[in-house]
Amino acid sequence: MSLKPGRVFSGARPTGRQHLGNYLGAIKNYVALQDEYECVYSIVDLHALTTLESTQDLRQNSYEMALDWLAAGLDPQKCIIFIQSHVPEVTELHTILSMVTPLGKLTDLPTFKEKARMHPHNINYGLVGYPVLMTADIALYRANWVPVGVDQAPHIEFSRETIRSFNFHFNTNALVEPQMKVTNVPKVLGIDGQQKMSKSLNNHIELAATPEETQQRVLSMVTDPARIRRTDPGNPDVCNVFSMHKIFSGSEEVEMINVECRRAGIGCVDCKKRLAKNMNASLQPFRDRRADFDSKPDQVWDILHDGARRATVIAEETMHDVRAAVGLAERD
Amino acid sequence: MSLKPGRVFSGARPTGRQHLGNYLGAIKNYVALQDEYECVYSIVDLHALTTLESTQDLRQNSYEMALDWLAAGLDPQKCIIFIQSHVPEVTELHTILSMVTPLGKLTDLPTFKEKARMHPHNINYGLVGYPVLMTADIALYRANWVPVGVDQAPHIEFSRETIRSFNFHFNTNALVEPQMKVTNVPKVLGIDGQQKMSKSLNNHIELAATPEETQQRVLSMVTDPARIRRTDPGNPDVCNVFSMHKIFSGSEEVEMINVECRRAGIGCVDCKKRLAKNMNASLQPFRDRRADFDSKPDQVWDILHDGARRATVIAEETMHDVRAAVGLAERD
Ligand code: SF4
Ligand code: SF4
Repeated sequence: MSLKPGRVFSGARPTGRQHLGNYLGAIKNYVALQDEYECVYSIVDLHALTTLESTQDLRQNSYEMALDWLAAGLDPQKCIIFIQSHVPEVTELHTILSMVTPLGKLTDLPTFKEKARMHPHNINYGLVGYPVLMTADIALYRANWVPVGVDQAPHIEFSRETIRSFNFHFNTNALVEPQMKVTNVPKVLGIDGQQKMSKSLNNHIELAATPEETQQRVLSMVTDPARIRRTDPGNPDVCNVFSMHKIFSGSEEVEMINVECRRAGIGCVDCKKRLAKNMNASLQPFRDRRADFDSKPDQVWDILHDGARRATVIAEETMHDVRAAVGLAERD
Repeated sequence: MSLKPGRVFSGARPTGRQHLGNYLGAIKNYVALQDEYECVYSIVDLHALTTLESTQDLRQNSYEMALDWLAAGLDPQKCIIFIQSHVPEVTELHTILSMVTPLGKLTDLPTFKEKARMHPHNINYGLVGYPVLMTADIALYRANWVPVGVDQAPHIEFSRETIRSFNFHFNTNALVEPQMKVTNVPKVLGIDGQQKMSKSLNNHIELAATPEETQQRVLSMVTDPARIRRTDPGNPDVCNVFSMHKIFSGSEEVEMINVECRRAGIGCVDCKKRLAKNMNASLQPFRDRRADFDSKPDQVWDILHDGARRATVIAEETMHDVRAAVGLAERD
């Protein structure tokens, strides 16, 4: 029995090697939560099927993401890390929840409309049910808390309503209505300085890149667009390189750049080289840990399989109560 | 390894005590098929959730239907009888298949439109996916044959297309495309003589009714509507009582009624009493076997649980191949 004040669930699609945006926007927060809460972190490979992206890399992408999570400090002694499809009870709960989910509620969700716009020729039944599967994830582990950025609030509200609706319809409290844990994560822009950092836009910097690759990516970052010549003064407030400096560089160096950029005392190339150096120094321990895990892939899979076993214990308790509430005949 | 020439799958919603229409339209055929084929018969309790009907009776209705199946001659030594939700792999396959199923194909199906009309305030996501869950049932057991009435042909065609689409998309032959086994089953009318016999219309005669209940139901049957008085000649060709005589009475008696009715030589009450007598005689061995099974409910549950175990063996083989084809990471 845990003495922690509640359970946190979060899932992330297996997008393979993680980038700075993933780390600063999610993983860092995962690591922070594991000491205080009973955390369940899922690599949601079934969700990756909703748009049928790169399923041939699913296994490898799940593994790479697990490596990044572990290297970033997720500790299997403190939290549960596992692959969604390894606990198939989630599909059972998904199927049952689908029976209490009005179709119109799903097609009205803004994210559905957005996906329907992006994949007009691939509106699969499973894509419509994405939020139901997400709800099943949360509900299966009876999470009290779900860490979310503000943009995901409608999905969690949907999950809460679906869970309430299930409990009401079957006159039970088998499922737990989760609370949102809104975290104030920085919006990390890509090297284009315009859009959110994302693998699909190829504007990202991988956590596990080599120092050389990292420097190359940093050197190609878009800076203050008004600073054309070396002799033009710049404005760090509109420069993504400067935003990154605030994360990776010491306060003295940050202050120096803040002053020197504005009077053209430092050039962008120099500024970026400093960032790359600091970023690489900051990421080096991560990379060492990652290489260490990667040299023992069996151990990584053991961690994931052990996580699935521990997740299954929770899942089976929940499903036992769900089946009873629904009135399905007992199993053997 | 079976030497039978293929596997048959069929599922039926747990509607509780079965009636003559169920027997003549489906169960009788199930019994006939079990000698020739490797038959898998499922009590599809999850399907019963799609319209959230009487879920509080789900367990009892599943049990009652199993009693009727066993008493009617389904032999657990020859076929697999089990409850759908006891092999939850079906929900896993359902979730995966939902990813390759265009939403529009589901909402275009005539049965969906019909259901949407009947339950306008209850169009749940799960209701839309009914044919996907049905496909998962068939595909999970790699059925070669699915016995269907002509009206279900569009559903099986949907299943075939979905299975082809899965196999094509993942470049695999993990799933088997089933063939339709169109059986020429009589359309059994209810005691109203108008509509198909159905529990929901309350125009049915239960297989397990007592002789008295059965006689009462038969006596209330609608006959040739043109025969008002005892002295009017009747027309057996338009009389449902006569159709039932052809099933339950000897050929001499059928011929006698065929003649006497037309010249008002026999009255409808007499004709119905004869039918009730023959029906009861014909059903008596069934009722005895049913009472025998019902006196040992544990044995019935054992049969169902054993069926689930045998079904699971097949299901796990299929899902192993499905997961590999999709590219999901191996489990422990
Ligand atoms: S000197 Fe640095 S902060 Fe200033 S514009 Fe160039 S990259 Fe941005
Ligand atoms: S005598 Fe029998 S067959 Fe003829 S109309 Fe009456 S019930 Fe029907």
